[in-house]
Amino acid sequence: MTELLRGKLLVGQSGGCTAVINSSLVGVVEEALSHKELQGVLGALHGVQGLLQGQIVDLGREARSTLKRLRRTPSAALGSCRYKLEEGDLEQLVQLFRRHDVRYFVYIGGNDSADTSHRLALAAADIGYDLRVFAVPKTIDNDLPFTDHCPGYGSIARFVAQSTQDAGLDTEAMKQYDPVKIIEVMGRNAGWVAAGSALAKKSEQDAPHLIYVPELPFDEQRFLEDVRRMHQAVGYVVVVVSETIRDGKGQRVGGESPYFVDSFGHGYYESPAAHLCKVVTRELGLRARFDKPGTIQRMSMALASPVDLDEAYLVGKMAVRYILEGRSDHMVTLLREPGPDYRCTTGSVPLAEIANVEKRLPAEFLSAEGNFVTPAFLEYATPLVGGAFLPYARLEKHRVTGSVTGL
Amino acid sequence: MTELLRGKLLVGQSGGCTAVINSSLVGVVEEALSHKELQGVLGALHGVQGLLQGQIVDLGREARSTLKRLRRTPSAALGSCRYKLEEGDLEQLVQLFRRHDVRYFVYIGGNDSADTSHRLALAAADIGYDLRVFAVPKTIDNDLPFTDHCPGYGSIARFVAQSTQDAGLDTEAMKQYDPVKIIEVMGRNAGWVAAGSALAKKSEQDAPHLIYVPELPFDEQRFLEDVRRMHQAVGYVVVVVSETIRDGKGQRVGGESPYFVDSFGHGYYESPAAHLCKVVTRELGLRARFDKPGTIQRMSMALASPVDLDEAYLVGKMAVRYILEGRSDHMVTLLREPGPDYRCTTGSVPLAEIANVEKRLPAEFLSAEGNFVTPAFLEYATPLVGGAFLPYARLEKHRVTGSVTGL
Repeated sequence: MTELLRGKLLVGQSGGCTAVINSSLVGVVEEALSHKELQGVLGALHGVQGLLQGQIVDLGREARSTLKRLRRTPSAALGSCRYKLEEGDLEQLVQLFRRHDVRYFVYIGGNDSADTSHRLALAAADIGYDLRVFAVPKTIDNDLPFTDHCPGYGSIARFVAQSTQDAGLDTEAMKQYDPVKIIEVMGRNAGWVAAGSALAKKSEQDAPHLIYVPELPFDEQRFLEDVRRMHQAVGYVVVVVSETIRDGKGQRVGGESPYFVDSFGHGYYESPAAHLCKVVTRELGLRARFDKPGTIQRMSMALASPVDLDEAYLVGKMAVRYILEGRSDHMVTLLREPGPDYRCTTGSVPLAEIANVEKRLPAEFLSAEGNFVTPAFLEYATPLVGGAFLPYARLEKHRVTGSVTGL
Repeated sequence: MTELLRGKLLVGQSGGCTAVINSSLVGVVEEALSHKELQGVLGALHGVQGLLQGQIVDLGREARSTLKRLRRTPSAALGSCRYKLEEGDLEQLVQLFRRHDVRYFVYIGGNDSADTSHRLALAAADIGYDLRVFAVPKTIDNDLPFTDHCPGYGSIARFVAQSTQDAGLDTEAMKQYDPVKIIEVMGRNAGWVAAGSALAKKSEQDAPHLIYVPELPFDEQRFLEDVRRMHQAVGYVVVVVSETIRDGKGQRVGGESPYFVDSFGHGYYESPAAHLCKVVTRELGLRARFDKPGTIQRMSMALASPVDLDEAYLVGKMAVRYILEGRSDHMVTLLREPGPDYRCTTGSVPLAEIANVEKRLPAEFLSAEGNFVTPAFLEYATPLVGGAFLPYARLEKHRVTGSVTGL
């Protein structure tokens, strides 16, 4: 039995928000409040950035009814941040932990947050302050290694899959007029979200018809050929593209230079979908329009995955159990059990192995042509969206004698 | 009692799709199939455009289970069109009706479709062919006159209101990093959809904070001042803009010239939201991003309004009852009953009074500053979205002693 450190637990949220990051927060808080050996449960506003400004709240004073509703509230209720640690920050954070008697730090976030957590654990050890640190995985990008998937992904995949059906039916009805639609979804370096758009497709006719992801170089000529061929075959085309796709030379499609660069060095560019619409209209003479659901896709509670909501809560709870057992400098992982029925348990992995490693779509999840996903991907991702999609219908369209076919 | 015309009923769908236009179709078909005096119930594929190519299907042969599921399937199951009648088309349509023994024509659509229906009624009368014509209102734009509102509007308003809450919570959590979000919604000449974004707002803090609609000239300097003031007051700003907003000289915000012009002469332009993001970042130094849900906003069945779905079905049924009673060259209208509880009955109005008239947001629904809606609008529109929004929670955030406030 590892010695229990006498002190408080502090939790923070970091990085891009998701529909389920508050489920993880509530998992952490409810589990921590159930451990009377903890001296308190605190929250950092806006992650380490707010923490550095001394922004700490007492989560033990929140109403249980608030926490209950928070499990079904998207975004990060504590506030989030994208903050790159500066010289002296780590020492300041450790001092702050000492002042507030914090011995347990749980950080809910993605790759950047795992890196921050790891560096904080190292800094505390250097200074000689007993601190246990745990990361809770959170990212719609689904790009953290070692975990089967990341909380947040199932919900954005559910939104994108359902919305692609919705937008696809729209294009199908308007195919004589607006035959091409390009849906731009999130995914800076990995195509997991774009791949998820295929999860509600039941027939060749259903959207999406083409998917382009950051893992593969984008070739405009091949793209145009794909669109033309699909238009001939289906009569309309729904294309899903990740927000970042690059050509063979590494140049971003749709923008030469970023109009903004964040503190992690991530650039923000023009919409590739808007650009590709113009290319399709100009080169193929087919009218194209685009949808860019933006932050709505990662925030939709109406289309959140019930499985994702439950798992997000679970990884929050487990972080507290693991940290109180004595584990530190680890991230909770989801481990898929073998067998025909989907089931995940949890484990943990050292942060040193996580930080700044990106898990991208593996080759076996991408079609040979590089413009769609494989059945192996669908098998992997289907359980994560948490159930069937809406049971839409199509008319049989029995032709009347003397009427024409082929439209 | 008006003489019953012996023949078939033909129904078509036209214009932009909605989440509930198939509910109207099923209302028409189920009601028509219950009238044994009708010789058949036919459907036109892709509206009058498909009809001119002889594309007619027998809706009486569709399974009842398909029709049932179709009531909850977005888009236009028969296919839609945007087709401007050409010389000779009307005569050709009347000939086609004669050939297929069609005596009743029901057209589900918006302003352009009402115009087409009216011209068809006049042409049949000119030719001396007994034809009864009825229009069923359908438009997310909510811009048809005489009807309290248009089927399709309640559902897009529900999607936009909920999504604005979702995206607003995202911006709130990321306010130190991404403090401004601009959501671009549909609405070519009328701001009903943008106005609907306010329907889930419960406090000053909630999104949206500013709304700009096509009814009022857009002044970039005043917009920047509004954003700066709101940022100071709330700490972040969510702006909702209609897809078309124009400056005082009538110039479109965000695009000089259309990149496409449709057959009705409607132009398609660059995104004003993308443009305004750059303006905010450049002029105020506040990072801004945009969401443009595009066709997803009008197609979402997961966020459709139950009231809208029911009313769409009702106006379909009533069109058949009215046309069989002998009314013709009319559109079904929704009439709000007086009294504290929301209730609509139906009526009808001559198409001659409808065609090409647009009902825009009246002055009493827009704030004096021209950047938000009034309580009168909320009172009008709240019943249309069909019930409460998701019960999201915020933390109380009790500050810990020794911690700082004001973030």
